[in-house]
Amino acid sequence: MVERLYLYDTTLRDGQQTQGVQFSTQEKRAIAAMLDELGVDYIEGGWPGANPTDSEFFEDLPKTRARVTAFGMTKRAGRSADNDDVLAAVMNAGTSAVCLVGKTHDFHVETALGISLDENVENISTSVAHVVSAGREALFDAEHFFDGYKSNPDYTLRAAKAAYDAGARWVVLCDTNGGALPHDVRGATKALIEAGVPGDHIGIHTHNDTENAVANSLVAVAAGARHIQGTLNGLGERCGNANLTTLIPTLLLKDPYASQFETGVSMETLKDLRKASRMLDEVLNRVPHKQAAYVGASAFAHKAGLHASAIAKDPSTYEHIDPSLVGNSRIVPMSNQAGQSNLRERLSSMGLDVAKGDPALQRILDRVKEREAAGYSYDTAQASFEVLAREELGLMPEFFEVKRYRVTVERRRNKRNEMVSLSEAVVVVKVDGVKTMSVSESLGPDGSDQGPVNALSRALMKDLGRYATDVSDIRLTDFKVRITNGGTEAVTRVIIDSEDGQGRTWSTVGVSANIVDASFDALVDAIRWKLVRDGAVT
Amino acid sequence: MVERLYLYDTTLRDGQQTQGVQFSTQEKRAIAAMLDELGVDYIEGGWPGANPTDSEFFEDLPKTRARVTAFGMTKRAGRSADNDDVLAAVMNAGTSAVCLVGKTHDFHVETALGISLDENVENISTSVAHVVSAGREALFDAEHFFDGYKSNPDYTLRAAKAAYDAGARWVVLCDTNGGALPHDVRGATKALIEAGVPGDHIGIHTHNDTENAVANSLVAVAAGARHIQGTLNGLGERCGNANLTTLIPTLLLKDPYASQFETGVSMETLKDLRKASRMLDEVLNRVPHKQAAYVGASAFAHKAGLHASAIAKDPSTYEHIDPSLVGNSRIVPMSNQAGQSNLRERLSSMGLDVAKGDPALQRILDRVKEREAAGYSYDTAQASFEVLAREELGLMPEFFEVKRYRVTVERRRNKRNEMVSLSEAVVVVKVDGVKTMSVSESLGPDGSDQGPVNALSRALMKDLGRYATDVSDIRLTDFKVRITNGGTEAVTRVIIDSEDGQGRTWSTVGVSANIVDASFDALVDAIRWKLVRDGAVT
Repeated sequence: MVERLYLYDTTLRDGQQTQGVQFSTQEKRAIAAMLDELGVDYIEGGWPGANPTDSEFFEDLPKTRARVTAFGMTKRAGRSADNDDVLAAVMNAGTSAVCLVGKTHDFHVETALGISLDENVENISTSVAHVVSAGREALFDAEHFFDGYKSNPDYTLRAAKAAYDAGARWVVLCDTNGGALPHDVRGATKALIEAGVPGDHIGIHTHNDTENAVANSLVAVAAGARHIQGTLNGLGERCGNANLTTLIPTLLLKDPYASQFETGVSMETLKDLRKASRMLDEVLNRVPHKQAAYVGASAFAHKAGLHASAIAKDPSTYEHIDPSLVGNSRIVPMSNQAGQSNLRERLSSMGLDVAKGDPALQRILDRVKEREAAGYSYDTAQASFEVLAREELGLMPEFFEVKRYRVTVERRRNKRNEMVSLSEAVVVVKVDGVKTMSVSESLGPDGSDQGPVNALSRALMKDLGRYATDVSDIRLTDFKVRITNGGTEAVTRVIIDSEDGQGRTWSTVGVSANIVDASFDALVDAIRWKLVRDGAVT
Repeated sequence: MVERLYLYDTTLRDGQQTQGVQFSTQEKRAIAAMLDELGVDYIEGGWPGANPTDSEFFEDLPKTRARVTAFGMTKRAGRSADNDDVLAAVMNAGTSAVCLVGKTHDFHVETALGISLDENVENISTSVAHVVSAGREALFDAEHFFDGYKSNPDYTLRAAKAAYDAGARWVVLCDTNGGALPHDVRGATKALIEAGVPGDHIGIHTHNDTENAVANSLVAVAAGARHIQGTLNGLGERCGNANLTTLIPTLLLKDPYASQFETGVSMETLKDLRKASRMLDEVLNRVPHKQAAYVGASAFAHKAGLHASAIAKDPSTYEHIDPSLVGNSRIVPMSNQAGQSNLRERLSSMGLDVAKGDPALQRILDRVKEREAAGYSYDTAQASFEVLAREELGLMPEFFEVKRYRVTVERRRNKRNEMVSLSEAVVVVKVDGVKTMSVSESLGPDGSDQGPVNALSRALMKDLGRYATDVSDIRLTDFKVRITNGGTEAVTRVIIDSEDGQGRTWSTVGVSANIVDASFDALVDAIRWKLVRDGAVT
């Protein structure tokens, strides 16, 4: 009999504990939408009341199939659940599910909270009952469950069971400090089931401090748990949380899990896993981890000569799964054949059908290779890739020529003795044989300086002759900069995301030691892509 | 009774299969020396004859306590062990231990080798016996052992046992494709012991394709194996090998392993673990993985406010081990989730002891909160945080005042009709009441333009009066830019990483709608931090 296994994503809450990670509300919404499409069951949105971004996220709950969950803590001692303002903020978020963390380790109850063991159990029961009586689904996060079980097994089991008895849909066993090993998790999970909490009410929440977060999640499921918490790309405090990007394909593709369970993620949405992983990296402006399980760029790269030649005979000789199942692909260095068929597929998805064996294919591959060695990256900058490919295919009009530009940034005191800055750009372009010279300042809606790239973009689009209307609705939505290696020198890579009036979005890339130059090139690519896609007449 | 567990490092062989990794012979020697100091038992140096670097490494064997091991493969069918030139090259390396890989999976024997199952067993026996008869220690790498055991358990066990019967000191069970899960490893390892190979002759070699390499190694030891293979920092083909940097502290610090076993690594050399991990990253010019278990910069970073305040009372509340045991240290990063206790701890680690209740603490928290709302992030930009805190504490001299600056970027055709760009910056500063005006172009080593931030940095540091020598050794090592929300408007956040002649590194942040402005502010913070830390006299 196939059983249901529930996936609970906490990228937006525990994932935000990663050093250097701070989502905006808009980014949280985008990630939630992606998680929903992937098929997770719960999306933990944050802790309402803990910080402005989390509160704002809950003010306008996203419409998802997945349950958006608010996180908080059990009521404090000495007040009723109704009178606890922290708990009230969580309840007021209005989510259909609420997850409350509480203590189950005697040491923490006595030293961190400074209350009696009985009071703590009472806080857990009352808080869970409060959530349930409000008609919400209650989840209880049993903090330090595994450490507690080692220290005082009876008390830890009693505290966890109190949550179940009070009506918690899930009692989630947390390895808060991340130090538990698989045999610890197996033993304590089984003990809780024996103590009377059924496995289909038990969840697992692990951390990667000993690189066992995935194994600990799997062993908990083997012991009976039916709910797994984790984050995309294993984001999370310290060494991160259990990596859902790894757990999902393992559960769907490997026995005994694959034959025993079903999850909200289907074999169809599994194909978007690599894309989802990359999208999160993009939002965070992080370099994707090449060696990531399943989705990493190196996950199916076969460098060893013996492996590569066997792979050519039969991929299953050195691959544990078919990479396309997770939207990834094989990399075999020196394999131009694979390169060309991939390329034709990619071009075809852009509406460019190129015959097998067309010499332009090799020219495109060579140019991509050469430019990637110089620091470019076409993984996300699809529009720049299309411009490059169209050039080689003779399908890219020039539209306009940039003769020169100059941009000045100045910071000085104004008449009121305030430090102010100002950017000014001059761009000279030639359209239809006519040279035009445009100048623009860069001023935001409030009259403040928006910087040199903004000034350049305005000056460039100010007078593009017959293309003026075509480009009038282009808006720059994001701008990412990274220092990377271009050959032996460090260069700047700029990725610009653009959007137009039709809601179309596209990304372009520019590379130069000079950040303004790199930005300008990405900007020009963005305009050219829009013109060619709109069929602007040359 | 305490048993001996043997550690076998394959960083120099399997680790070199990592995409982008290619050691020089000199680097191999440096890594071998470090591994030896750490206390591993075996150092696999490479495959003599497979490539020039590996051959060169074996020509002059390093003098180590650890056994340097040569890797190769069992003799091919149809020739004797004496007449196999590949095997001869491995034997000629003259190491006291030799590790030979051979097939134990029927599918591979029949499809990849195209020989009979019996011939393959014969090759294994003969090859191992050949090594033993030469007076060397023989290790047999049982390729695809776990996949083979699933496909044809009898044959896989028979092939592995043949190596033991022929005198192999260790039969190493390889999860070559990396797809085995812990329960697979447990079952197959136990089966081999039942088939007659004693556990203290069994080794384990795993890969991280499902993030279970560490768990698979541990479960093999629990099942009876007494030899673990892995690499530093988990280098290796595809998703990497079992990470010794994680396994070593787990085996030494966590039960039942810690009380059951002893290894060549002592509690004393364990303290060098973090340093060893960083040294390898340096050799490879890789950015260290912040979230790495035990040794990562974030491994003991406590961002959540609740955790940080408990940590201040007792570190064991949210730490699974004492970070100093592996040479690492605690970080309490500043963020808008932090509280006063978190802050005092952070300040104290910077040498700034502030009394509990000091009103400056709240001012610092308020300013951090306000600035984070404006788009700043002090998670990684610790130096900017210190500058801010010192300002509120009255411990931050101004050193110099920037009166104004102007930077121009120009792209145009040169005399040879090539498009070239040029940046020029003018900075006016006041030091000791004296106003100085400096101008600088931005030229890289090859005379190319390095952009406006480089030009500004040069102009700024060109004439800082009495601080000229203090800042002369500052070097910008990284530069990260992202668009973020500053209140309602999108702003640019720039993080600059700097380094000085003493090898000290620090990060600063600047935020503005104007990218040049943001960079300039981060630059000024970087200089001010260096001056205050060096005790520059004002």
